[in-house]
Amino acid sequence: MKNYRIGIFGLGTVASGLIKILKKEKINYQNRFNVNFELSQVVVHDLQKKRAPEFDGLNISDDPAKIIEDPAIDIVIELIGGKTVAKNIIEESLQTGKHVITANKDLIASEGRKLSRLAKEKHVGLFYEAAVAGGIPILRSLSNSLASDEIEQINGIVNGTSNFILSQMRQNKISYAAALKTAQEKGFAEADPSNDVDGIDAAYKLQILADFTFGKQINQRDIQMGGIRTITQADLQDVTDLGYEIKLLASATVISNKLELSVAPTLVPKGHPLASVQNENNAVFVNGRYSGGLMFYGPGAGEFPTANSVAADLIELTKKIDQPESFNTNFSSDLTLAKPKDRIASRYIVFNVANRPGVMHKLSAFFLMSDINFRNIRQYDPVGDNTRVVIITYPASDAQLNPVKTTIRKARGVEIIHEFKLLIEPKEVTNA
Amino acid sequence: MKNYRIGIFGLGTVASGLIKILKKEKINYQNRFNVNFELSQVVVHDLQKKRAPEFDGLNISDDPAKIIEDPAIDIVIELIGGKTVAKNIIEESLQTGKHVITANKDLIASEGRKLSRLAKEKHVGLFYEAAVAGGIPILRSLSNSLASDEIEQINGIVNGTSNFILSQMRQNKISYAAALKTAQEKGFAEADPSNDVDGIDAAYKLQILADFTFGKQINQRDIQMGGIRTITQADLQDVTDLGYEIKLLASATVISNKLELSVAPTLVPKGHPLASVQNENNAVFVNGRYSGGLMFYGPGAGEFPTANSVAADLIELTKKIDQPESFNTNFSSDLTLAKPKDRIASRYIVFNVANRPGVMHKLSAFFLMSDINFRNIRQYDPVGDNTRVVIITYPASDAQLNPVKTTIRKARGVEIIHEFKLLIEPKEVTNA
Repeated sequence: MKNYRIGIFGLGTVASGLIKILKKEKINYQNRFNVNFELSQVVVHDLQKKRAPEFDGLNISDDPAKIIEDPAIDIVIELIGGKTVAKNIIEESLQTGKHVITANKDLIASEGRKLSRLAKEKHVGLFYEAAVAGGIPILRSLSNSLASDEIEQINGIVNGTSNFILSQMRQNKISYAAALKTAQEKGFAEADPSNDVDGIDAAYKLQILADFTFGKQINQRDIQMGGIRTITQADLQDVTDLGYEIKLLASATVISNKLELSVAPTLVPKGHPLASVQNENNAVFVNGRYSGGLMFYGPGAGEFPTANSVAADLIELTKKIDQPESFNTNFSSDLTLAKPKDRIASRYIVFNVANRPGVMHKLSAFFLMSDINFRNIRQYDPVGDNTRVVIITYPASDAQLNPVKTTIRKARGVEIIHEFKLLIEPKEVTNA
Repeated sequence: MKNYRIGIFGLGTVASGLIKILKKEKINYQNRFNVNFELSQVVVHDLQKKRAPEFDGLNISDDPAKIIEDPAIDIVIELIGGKTVAKNIIEESLQTGKHVITANKDLIASEGRKLSRLAKEKHVGLFYEAAVAGGIPILRSLSNSLASDEIEQINGIVNGTSNFILSQMRQNKISYAAALKTAQEKGFAEADPSNDVDGIDAAYKLQILADFTFGKQINQRDIQMGGIRTITQADLQDVTDLGYEIKLLASATVISNKLELSVAPTLVPKGHPLASVQNENNAVFVNGRYSGGLMFYGPGAGEFPTANSVAADLIELTKKIDQPESFNTNFSSDLTLAKPKDRIASRYIVFNVANRPGVMHKLSAFFLMSDINFRNIRQYDPVGDNTRVVIITYPASDAQLNPVKTTIRKARGVEIIHEFKLLIEPKEVTNA
């Protein structure tokens, strides 16, 4: 039996779940994996905070040195989140030869590569399965089972809050504001929901996913961003009638050796597995040259699902503790970022136009200018002096569409409410 | 760069796919994993068979000794299938210290444990991700990412042929016979489809899944088996109206430390992710005490998806070639098999009854005898002297239902056409 001493930073939801799992499964892990995990020290920010009685026996301190400077501690688990303090903790732990497990997506999104290199240099492990899509084992699958494949595209519903809001709007025919309120009441959304509904949280996860999938550490500014705030019941009615669901997708696609990155509301055809992902669940759909279309579905957050991902990292780490191979250190590609002419998709565009003769004539002239063809058009009965027009186009590039949008912004009587892409589906692989 | 010499048994669909992948990805694998795979020898049954020109340069023989007795060959890949010859090949390869990768579900279903023990004894690796659900990395996920969890239930759509037939019947409102014909024309079903439509193929996969999930090598005779041959459009209409899909599910459930195993048509609620798995696709849904409900979805067969699973095994094997840890060798549990009183589910039961007074009175008396309550009842207009009656019951055990069925078999004017269970959903985990 091998014994490992563990130090945990933080005692929030995930840490609580982990401590309960390690206690409950102690004998099970001893029998099955021949390891014993000994929880030596917990470090918290606020020592005065009231803790549940089940944590009574723990060594709790507010001094990070109790973990970092204790040579007996083998493995550090960082669960405080945020970028500054967490970064110091992880760097110092790696420097002193401790293995590190974290669930910190914000930090790993930008520093994952650098920290992984440091871990490799120090011959210790660094794992962070819980950082993306909570309980879904997507990083380990990309790193192990899918490493033999050439991935062409990855599409993730990786923000449970926004998926919950969109699902509630769709199921109960309620407004964005009402659905957000429900999400806040259930504890799925914060008082300021910006991080979730504007796609920032999903973008962090996309940075990590893109690194694992395409071997490239990307900047958040290279991701085309869009949020769900402007989506209305009228949109949901349109897309439902036309055979789609709207999902906030984090997407990374390789097209002719160019990498296209976006987090945005996207129209997903109803038959696609991503279309049926409801409420706070997450899913990541991976299109591989060989493996075809795979989807990994499950809870994207929560005390036990997320803690279980940390526990799985722990066990995997100890399986090859002498030569721990951190996630994804040897994989880099020379992909460049897609340019506007490379970013091709069908578009769902919603207009508010003046209700008078010639408006559709003018609108269609703008699109003809860029040689963009329409697939569906809907004009609704006017409300006041204006009317809602919805157009789905055939595939067109941003380079084609951007001048149309510029022209429309200058034109009178026509206004774009919003524009979402339709999911691009890679052609089926018929021959390697 | 480490060089590995590979011998492949078989040159069918999966072997062809693998050879193409290894050729196309050679440089990629060298760069990313620092390994070179050298295809030293292929052994086939029929040397005279015409091969595609792309295999011209290969060393092809019909003598197994060319691989097994060649000390220079490090890794044997068995892709001939079947139980007898394949078993000898794998055993002899392991005995001579070669690592083995196989896609052979029939053999692994019954001999997986024994062969894994032999591999361990000889300090070589034995992997077989491709044996279950083709391109879906389910075995490695169960073995790595989910090993920290206590799995409560696993439900798989693991036979693409039967799922294709059921999907076609549902989508195109055609009969079982017509859908089977389409499947045969598309090459999804064989001339004798028994293995697929009677659940035998799915049962092999369930044996392997249950071993990984619950640490128990089970016999096929311990699985309650049912096939899809008797399903009609009337059934599909009923279940659709009532909010379900019928899927051929391979299920393993732990209820109070008893293991319940079945391969049978099962009513899945429409909102459940398994309900939306269409056509030849596969999916495995795993309910874990901590991870909640996870689903792994993708192609269950095909040249490249299956070959990619073999390629992933190859790369994982070489990552720890000195201490290869075969799938699942240290996991065993003391679960006993569920008895009829433990096997509890709601039932969908279809009757053919005589169209005369008193029949429903008699039928309901039979169920009252076992204290079984009804949730839905539908009686249709008669066809000739008989009429179709459909009952969905509240949860009842096999021990409750079996005497009812015996009584009905002896009664006049009442006949059971078939009886399917509704998916049992484990209660949500609220506290560990």
